[in-house]
Amino acid sequence: MENITDKLLYGAAYYPEYMPVERMEEDMRLLRDAGFNLIRVAESTWSTWEPREGEFDLSLLHRTLETAGRYGLRVIVGTPTYAIPPWLARKYPDIMSETHAGPLRYGCRQSFDLTHPAYRRHCEIIIRKVCEAAAQYDCVIGYQLDNETKPYDTCSARAQALFKKYLRQKFRTVERLNREFGFAYWSNALGSWDDLPDVRGTINASYGAEYQAFQRSLVTDFLLWQRSLVEEYLRPGQFITHNFDYQWRGWSFGPQPDVDQDAAGQAVTVAGCDIYHPGGGKLTGAEIAFGGAVARGIKKQNYLVLETQAQGNFGYLPYPGQLKLQALSHVACGAQGVEYWHWHSIHNALESYWKGVLSHDLQPNDIYRECADIGRTLARLSPKLLGMRKENRVAVMISTRSQAALEWFPTCQAGFRPDKTYADYVRWLCDSLYRLNVEYDILWDSQTDFSGYSLLILPTLYAAPEKLLRAVGKFVREGGNVIATFRTGFANEHLKIYSDAQPHLLTRVFGLTYDRFTVPEDAALASDYVPLPEGAHATDWMELVTPVTARPLVTLRHPAWDGTPAVTLNRYGRGKAVYLSACFGPEALDALLRRLLPELNIRLPGIEYPLVLRRAVSPTGATLVFFLNYSPRSVKGPDGTLIPPWGVRITENGKEI
Amino acid sequence: MENITDKLLYGAAYYPEYMPVERMEEDMRLLRDAGFNLIRVAESTWSTWEPREGEFDLSLLHRTLETAGRYGLRVIVGTPTYAIPPWLARKYPDIMSETHAGPLRYGCRQSFDLTHPAYRRHCEIIIRKVCEAAAQYDCVIGYQLDNETKPYDTCSARAQALFKKYLRQKFRTVERLNREFGFAYWSNALGSWDDLPDVRGTINASYGAEYQAFQRSLVTDFLLWQRSLVEEYLRPGQFITHNFDYQWRGWSFGPQPDVDQDAAGQAVTVAGCDIYHPGGGKLTGAEIAFGGAVARGIKKQNYLVLETQAQGNFGYLPYPGQLKLQALSHVACGAQGVEYWHWHSIHNALESYWKGVLSHDLQPNDIYRECADIGRTLARLSPKLLGMRKENRVAVMISTRSQAALEWFPTCQAGFRPDKTYADYVRWLCDSLYRLNVEYDILWDSQTDFSGYSLLILPTLYAAPEKLLRAVGKFVREGGNVIATFRTGFANEHLKIYSDAQPHLLTRVFGLTYDRFTVPEDAALASDYVPLPEGAHATDWMELVTPVTARPLVTLRHPAWDGTPAVTLNRYGRGKAVYLSACFGPEALDALLRRLLPELNIRLPGIEYPLVLRRAVSPTGATLVFFLNYSPRSVKGPDGTLIPPWGVRITENGKEI
Amino acid sequence: MENITDKLLYGAAYYPEYMPVERMEEDMRLLRDAGFNLIRVAESTWSTWEPREGEFDLSLLHRTLETAGRYGLRVIVGTPTYAIPPWLARKYPDIMSETHAGPLRYGCRQSFDLTHPAYRRHCEIIIRKVCEAAAQYDCVIGYQLDNETKPYDTCSARAQALFKKYLRQKFRTVERLNREFGFAYWSNALGSWDDLPDVRGTINASYGAEYQAFQRSLVTDFLLWQRSLVEEYLRPGQFITHNFDYQWRGWSFGPQPDVDQDAAGQAVTVAGCDIYHPGGGKLTGAEIAFGGAVARGIKKQNYLVLETQAQGNFGYLPYPGQLKLQALSHVACGAQGVEYWHWHSIHNALESYWKGVLSHDLQPNDIYRECADIGRTLARLSPKLLGMRKENRVAVMISTRSQAALEWFPTCQAGFRPDKTYADYVRWLCDSLYRLNVEYDILWDSQTDFSGYSLLILPTLYAAPEKLLRAVGKFVREGGNVIATFRTGFANEHLKIYSDAQPHLLTRVFGLTYDRFTVPEDAALASDYVPLPEGAHATDWMELVTPVTARPLVTLRHPAWDGTPAVTLNRYGRGKAVYLSACFGPEALDALLRRLLPELNIRLPGIEYPLVLRRAVSPTGATLVFFLNYSPRSVKGPDGTLIPPWGVRITENGKEI
Repeated sequence: MENITDKLLYGAAYYPEYMPVERMEEDMRLLRDAGFNLIRVAESTWSTWEPREGEFDLSLLHRTLETAGRYGLRVIVGTPTYAIPPWLARKYPDIMSETHAGPLRYGCRQSFDLTHPAYRRHCEIIIRKVCEAAAQYDCVIGYQLDNETKPYDTCSARAQALFKKYLRQKFRTVERLNREFGFAYWSNALGSWDDLPDVRGTINASYGAEYQAFQRSLVTDFLLWQRSLVEEYLRPGQFITHNFDYQWRGWSFGPQPDVDQDAAGQAVTVAGCDIYHPGGGKLTGAEIAFGGAVARGIKKQNYLVLETQAQGNFGYLPYPGQLKLQALSHVACGAQGVEYWHWHSIHNALESYWKGVLSHDLQPNDIYRECADIGRTLARLSPKLLGMRKENRVAVMISTRSQAALEWFPTCQAGFRPDKTYADYVRWLCDSLYRLNVEYDILWDSQTDFSGYSLLILPTLYAAPEKLLRAVGKFVREGGNVIATFRTGFANEHLKIYSDAQPHLLTRVFGLTYDRFTVPEDAALASDYVPLPEGAHATDWMELVTPVTARPLVTLRHPAWDGTPAVTLNRYGRGKAVYLSACFGPEALDALLRRLLPELNIRLPGIEYPLVLRRAVSPTGATLVFFLNYSPRSVKGPDGTLIPPWGVRITENGKEI
Repeated sequence: MENITDKLLYGAAYYPEYMPVERMEEDMRLLRDAGFNLIRVAESTWSTWEPREGEFDLSLLHRTLETAGRYGLRVIVGTPTYAIPPWLARKYPDIMSETHAGPLRYGCRQSFDLTHPAYRRHCEIIIRKVCEAAAQYDCVIGYQLDNETKPYDTCSARAQALFKKYLRQKFRTVERLNREFGFAYWSNALGSWDDLPDVRGTINASYGAEYQAFQRSLVTDFLLWQRSLVEEYLRPGQFITHNFDYQWRGWSFGPQPDVDQDAAGQAVTVAGCDIYHPGGGKLTGAEIAFGGAVARGIKKQNYLVLETQAQGNFGYLPYPGQLKLQALSHVACGAQGVEYWHWHSIHNALESYWKGVLSHDLQPNDIYRECADIGRTLARLSPKLLGMRKENRVAVMISTRSQAALEWFPTCQAGFRPDKTYADYVRWLCDSLYRLNVEYDILWDSQTDFSGYSLLILPTLYAAPEKLLRAVGKFVREGGNVIATFRTGFANEHLKIYSDAQPHLLTRVFGLTYDRFTVPEDAALASDYVPLPEGAHATDWMELVTPVTARPLVTLRHPAWDGTPAVTLNRYGRGKAVYLSACFGPEALDALLRRLLPELNIRLPGIEYPLVLRRAVSPTGATLVFFLNYSPRSVKGPDGTLIPPWGVRITENGKEI
Repeated sequence: MENITDKLLYGAAYYPEYMPVERMEEDMRLLRDAGFNLIRVAESTWSTWEPREGEFDLSLLHRTLETAGRYGLRVIVGTPTYAIPPWLARKYPDIMSETHAGPLRYGCRQSFDLTHPAYRRHCEIIIRKVCEAAAQYDCVIGYQLDNETKPYDTCSARAQALFKKYLRQKFRTVERLNREFGFAYWSNALGSWDDLPDVRGTINASYGAEYQAFQRSLVTDFLLWQRSLVEEYLRPGQFITHNFDYQWRGWSFGPQPDVDQDAAGQAVTVAGCDIYHPGGGKLTGAEIAFGGAVARGIKKQNYLVLETQAQGNFGYLPYPGQLKLQALSHVACGAQGVEYWHWHSIHNALESYWKGVLSHDLQPNDIYRECADIGRTLARLSPKLLGMRKENRVAVMISTRSQAALEWFPTCQAGFRPDKTYADYVRWLCDSLYRLNVEYDILWDSQTDFSGYSLLILPTLYAAPEKLLRAVGKFVREGGNVIATFRTGFANEHLKIYSDAQPHLLTRVFGLTYDRFTVPEDAALASDYVPLPEGAHATDWMELVTPVTARPLVTLRHPAWDGTPAVTLNRYGRGKAVYLSACFGPEALDALLRRLLPELNIRLPGIEYPLVLRRAVSPTGATLVFFLNYSPRSVKGPDGTLIPPWGVRITENGKEI
C-alpha cells in the first residue's frame, strides 16, 4: 500500500474568510505550536473568491497558502462548489434544486441542481481559478473535490429527462420496463416513453428506487468530472480526495444512502471521510470504528479523516482525555490523518454552535492544550504507525440498493412501532462485532469475490442481483462462512420480489425456506445452543422458517408459531451458513456471536468493550495493538497494566510504544 | 329478501396483469381445487386494457373470463376507473385532483378530479369496452363499480364552481347563507355570490363541512352515473355492487367519512364492502361485526365482503384457524360471500407486503390449505346459511355530518390529549355491544322511522336536523328506548349551534339540560346503580348536566363539580331515555350496559367475548347460532361442548351443523 | 399617574353581528344588571360595515352605541382592520400574506400583507367611517386600534424591497453588511444589494433575525399610522388603546415575539392586553401576574385587560369562585378594567368553543351570576382601587432580539430533549418570584437606566448591544444588584457572537469567565450556601465557568466537570452580581432565591404560593394588600383570618375592605 503522505497528518479546517478580526499569523503560530501540520482551506466560500460574476479575488487564499507554507503547515485545498454565490442563484433561478418537496430557496449549501449547465460552467471557472492559485504553493499536498456531495434530491425536468435516457438505455422498450417494474399495477403501465410520469408521484418502488440510483450516479459523474479538471493542475505526490460521509441521525450513524461510495471512490486517489459522533458520557467509539471501516473500504486502503469534531455540537463537548482517545481510535482504524472541523468557532450563521478547537474568544483553551498533547503523540508515533495495514477476516456487506429498498418496504408498517431502517440492522451487527472486539471490513454489493475473508456478514441484503447471490453460494461452498439476516435475497436489484422459494438462490446454502413472515409479538427466544439474556425476545420481523438441512440454534416461544427458528446454522459445501430469521436485542446478539463466531473460525480476543482492542500490521511487519479504554474508569489491559479513564495504550509486538 | 346468488361465494381478487410469469391455468386449477368459486377481475388496470389512447387490448380479460368459465369459477368484473393510465394524466395535467394540500401528482390511484369532463368521457369509453367483453361470458355474475370511490379531496376551480351552484340552489341569497353559516364572524360575510372564497382557506366550519358534504355528493353522482352505464349491459340475475369501505386507522376502523354510504347505496343492487382488521394476537372480530353491520345497513339486506385479508399486511398474519374463524364470522354477520384481497402476492410496487393467499413464491402454502378447509365448509353449509337473515333489536345511528363536525370541533383542543374522533365514540358503544354479544344494525341519520327497534343508540349525534331530533323524541314517546351520548343534538345540519337549551329539542326526552361542559380532570365515576371497575373515571368530555326528571345512574366525584351526573335515565312517554353526559373507559361502559340493557328490554345472552355469539334466522325459519371463539384457549359453549382456540361452532335450532 | 377612566371598568366584547337572534335590548339589560359598565364593539366585522366595496352599512353599530348609551354602558370602539372582507381579497389576490410557508388563503383573520397599499387605503376608509359613527356617541370612552396586530409573516416582494431599503439605510455598503452578518459563511456574501436573497431561504441567523426585527417594525408603523387617523376623531378624555398579547402556548405564555411592544406602545395612550390562561384545576394566576407586568411595562402605568376568558376554551371552565379571583388578581396587578372575551358564545365558525359569559343558550347561568357578584364588588372597591400604583423594586428584562436569537440558536439541538425557548427561561425566573410573592416590573432591552430598582434580572439576555451591557455594569457598580443567567451577553444585537471573553463586557461584573458550555448530563447540584431539594440537577445548559473573583454558591457534581459552578455571586463596585451558569428545576430555583434575595436587599413577605400576595399604593397613599388564595383549600392569612378556596381578601392599611 502506498503511503498517503510522509507522516501522520493532524489538522483543522481553517476559514480566515469567517474570522471577525485579522489574525492569520496568530492562528498559524498557534496551529504549528500545537503540533498541527495540516489545514484544509477554500472549499466553502466561492462568494469570497468570486464576489461578482467574473470578478475574482483570491488574495486571501494566496495569503493563507503563503503563510501556511511559512509556518510549515501542509494544506488541502477544496474546490468551492458545494455552496454557490448569490449572484449565480440570482442569474439562474432554476439552478436551485427542484425536489420532492418543491424548489429550494437560495441560502443553504448543497441546494442546487447538479445537472444545471450553468452550474457546471461556473464550477469549472472557479475550480480552475482556485487550482491555478494552489498550484503555485509547495505546501499544498492535495485537493478535496467539493464537499460531502449529494444529489440534493434533484427532480428537475432536466434531471428527469436524463433519467428517461438512462432508462431507455437500460431497458430499451417500455414493455420490458413495464414488466420489470410491474407497472401494470394501479394502471401505471407506459404506452410510450413519453408516458413516463414525474418520479415524485410514484407509488412504484422499483421506479422510485431506480430514480434514487440515477441520482446517486449524478454524484459519481460530478466527482469524476471534477477530478478530470483538478488533475490538470496536479503535481506528482499530490492527492485528490473527497470527504465522504454517512447517514445522519444527529451524528454519523449509517451508510450514506445518497451516494454510491464505491463507485464515487473512483474519483479520488485517497478516501476521505467526515465522522461525527456522540461525545461526553455518550462516547462509545462505535462510529469511529464503523465509519473508519466504510472509509477504508472505499479505496481498500488507509484513509483520511477530513472532518471530525473538536468541541463538536454543544451537547458533545469532549471530556478531558476523549479527544486524544478519539484521534488514536481513528488512527487505529487506518486513518493516516485526523482533521478537525474546525480551527475556530464561527461568530455568525448556522454552525456557530458546532464549535472548533478555539472557542469564540479565539484564545488557547483546554481543548487546544489537549490537541497539543495529541500533536506531540502523533509526531512521536508517526514513524511506527504510518502505512500500517489492517488485516481483517470478517467482512460486512453494504448494499445501497437494499438501503433504499428498506425505506420503500420498511420492517415497520401500519404504525406498529418506531421506524427502523437499513442502517439500524447494519449497525446492529457491526456494533456487536465492535463490542466483541472483532474487527471487520466493509464491502459493497458490487463485489462478488470474498475469498480473502473467513466470514461474510449480510445484513438485510434485500435487493440483490442473482449474480451476487450466486457468489455468496460459491463462497460458502468453497469453505467461506456467512451470516445473513432476515429479508436477505428477497428481491432483485430493481426491487422486484423473486417469485420462487425464499431466500432466493440461497435455500440450499442456508438449508431452509419460508413463505410467510410477520411482526413478532410475545416471541421469546429459547436456545440450547447458547445461554441468552433474561427476557430476550424477537423484535421487528420474523420469518416462519422451515429448516430443511439447517440446525436451529435459537427458536421462538410463541402462542401460534412456537418452535419457529430465529437462528439456524447449515453446513453447505465446505462452509457454514448462519441465518438470522428474526431480529432481537443487542445483548442477545452479543451472546449469540460470542458462542458462534469461534465456530465460524473467528477467534475472539477475550477482551470486550468498553476496553476496545484494534490490531494492525506495521510497514515493518510488526504487530500493532491499540488498547482503547472507552470508559470513565481505569481498566486493566491483558498484561495487567492499568489504562486510565478514556486512555490509550499502544503496543508493537507486545511492547508499549 | 332476494338472494344475491345461488350459493355462498368464496373467492379472491385475481390479477393476471400483475403476475411475473404466465400461469393462469395453474391458478384457476388451484382456486377451484380449494373450493373457491369466485374471482374479481379487471378493476385495477385500465392501462393494460387501453395502453395508448383509443388502442384497446382486452385479450387478457377475455382469456381470464374464458378460463374461469372452464374451471367453474364465477366472476365479478370491475370497471377499471379508480386508477387512470399515464397517457390520460399526460394529456390533461389538470385531471389530477387539486386538493387542500395542492395538486396531486400522477402515480397513486384515486388521485384525480371526479368532475373533470375528460375523465368522465374516457371512463365511459373504457367501461363500455370492459362491459362489452364481460357481457359475452356466462361466468360473469355481476359488476363492481369502480373501487372504494372517494372525492379525492377535489378542490379544483371546476369543483368549486359546482359547489357555488349547489349553494345557490340551497340558500338562494347570500344573506341567507351569511346568516345560516354565521359568515359575519371574522368579516367573512359575502356581498355577492362571487365573493365565495376558496374553501381551502376557510375557518368557518359550516362552510367547510358543507363543502365536504358536496364532495360526498360527487361520489354518489359518480356511482349512479356508472350504474346507468353498466345497466345497459346487465343480464337478468347479474348484480351491480361496489366495495364500500371504512375510515382507515391502519385498518377498517370507523364509518367512512368521505362517502354518504346510504345515498351511494342507491347505485348498487347488492352492497359490498372491504374489511381489514388486526390479526394474530390482536384479532378480536370487532371490525368484522362493525363493518358487517354497516354493509348490511346500506341496502338493509345481506352483503358481500368483496375484500378482506388473506395474509394481510405483514403484522397481521393469521394464526392457524383464524382465517376460518374470520370467514365464518363474516357469514354470521350476513355476508353471503367472502373474497380475499387477493389471490397472489404482488412482486412490485406499493402493496407487495399486503400478501395474498399465495405468497410471492406462488406455491400452495398453509394459508392455501386453510382456505381449502374453508371452501369445503362453506360448500357444506351453503344450503343452510344462504339467505339467512339478521333480526336485531338494537340500532346504532351513524351521522356523517356529525363525523365531519367532530373534526371541526373535536373533544380535544389546546393539546389536552391524543385526538379522539367521532369514530372512536361510535366504536366505544358498538364494541361494548359486541363484547356483550348484543347484535346491532347500523342506521344513517337520514332515517327517521325507528319503529322496528327496541333500542336506538346515538353516539355523539352532534349535527342533527330538527326533523331527526323530533323523530327521536317520537320514538321514545311511543315506547322506544334510546341511549345518547354527550354532544348529541348540539348543532343543526350546518353545524350551527342551537341557541336554546341543550340538548336541543330533547331536554324533556332526557329529562335534563346543561349549559356548560369541560374536560374532566380527576373525575371519578360513582354509582349506586351498578358496580363499576376500580379507578373508573370520566375522560374526554363532561357536560355539567342538571337533571330535571332524569335519574342519575352514575355521577362524578370532582373537586368542583361533585355529584354531576355522568349517566342518567329518564322515563319519557312510554319509553326510556339514557344520556351519557361524560365519556369513560370501555370496562365501565361494559359494566353499565350489562346492567342497563335488560332494563331497556334488550336481553343479554349471558355469554361474553371472547366467546362471540351471532344469531340469524335461516330461510326456513330455523334459528342459526354461531359460536365464535376469539381466543387462543378452548372455551366451553352453553351446552358444554368445547370450542377450540379460534374455533367455530354453528347450530341450527340447537343442533350443530 | 393619570387615571384611565373614572371608575374600574368591567365589561365584555359584544358582537351583535354574530347573534343568531335579535336581542340587543335583552343583552344590554343583562349586562347592566350584572354590574358590567363596558362593552367593546366593532373590531371584527368589516364585512358587516362594508358588505360591498364602497357600500357602507353602519346601522347596527349606531344602534349598538345608542342602546349602550341608554343602558349606561361605556363603549370601546375597535377599528375593524384585523379581518378583511371577501371582496377586498378577491379584488387584490396579492393582499394575502406571502409567508415562509407560501401565500395564505382568504378566510382566517390576520393573514394579509400589512404593506399592501390597497390594504392601507381601504383601512383608512373604513376606520374613518367607524370613527365618524363613534364620534357621535357620548358613551364611547376610547378606541382600540386593530386587534393583536402582528406582521403575519409577510415576506412579499413588496415587504422584502422595503427590507432592502431598511438594510441599506442601516449598513450603507454590502461590505459592512457582509462583515456584520458573516455572510462569507457558505458563500452567502453579497456582491451588490441586488444579490440580497429571499429571506425565506436563509441559514444566516443575523439576516433572518434582522428580517424579523423589520417585520416587527411594520407593526409599530402600522399602529402609529392608525393612531394618527383615529386622533382626528378623538375627544378630550377619550383614550386610544390596543390589545397587546403574548406568545401563545395554548394560552398566554411568554413575551410576544412578533411585536416590539415597547416601541409599539407609543401608538396608544393606554396599554391594553389580552390574557388567557389555564383554569379549573390548572389555575395558578402566574399568567395574570406575568401578563400584567408586561402590560404595565408598556406605558409604565396601569392598563386595561381588554380580553380575558369568561368560560374560556372548554378545558379551562372556571370552578366556582375562580372568575372573581381572576378579576381581582388582574386589578391587583394594576388593571383598571377587566373585559371578557366575550359576552355570548358564538354559534358558528372557529371560536364556538371559546365560550363567553353566556353559553349558546343565551340564558343567565352560574357564570353570569358570578359576574354579577364581581360587578358589585368592583363597584364597591372602585373608589379605593382606582389609580392605585405598583412600587416594585425588582425588574425583569425582556429582549425580543434575544427571544428570536434563542429560536435560531436554541438550548436544545440534535434532538436532545423537548424544546425550550426564551419564554421558558423568562417564566422560569418570573414564576419563581411569583411563588415567593416578590412582585416585579418588566423592562425591555431598550432601557439602560435601572436606577429605580434594587434588583435587575436578566434571563438569557443573549443578543445584547454593548451599550446595554455597559449600562448593566454601571448599575451594579453604583450599587444595584443583578441576576443574569447563562447565555447572557453572548452576541450583539445582530446575533454576531462576541469574539472576546464571555460574558462580553461583564466578566468583571460577574467575576468569572468561560469558553465552553455543554448540555448537562448527570450533573447534580451541590451547595453549602443553601439546602437544595433532593435530586436537584442541572438541565438544558451549563457553562464551564471559571470564577475569578466570584464566589460559587452552587456547584455541579459531574463525572468530568465536577465542581463547576452553577451559581456564583460577585461583589462589583457597590453592588452584587449573581450569575446562573446552568439551568435547573423550579424547586431548586425557589430554594436559591429564598436564600439569595434578602442578600440582594429584596425582602420576602414570608407568605408563599398558593397564597398570593400583591401590594399597591392607593391614590391616597394607603397600603393596599391583596391576599389571593390560589388553592382549593381554605388558607390562613397573616392575621389568622381564613381565606376560602379560590378566595380573595383585600386590606387597606391592614383593614379589610
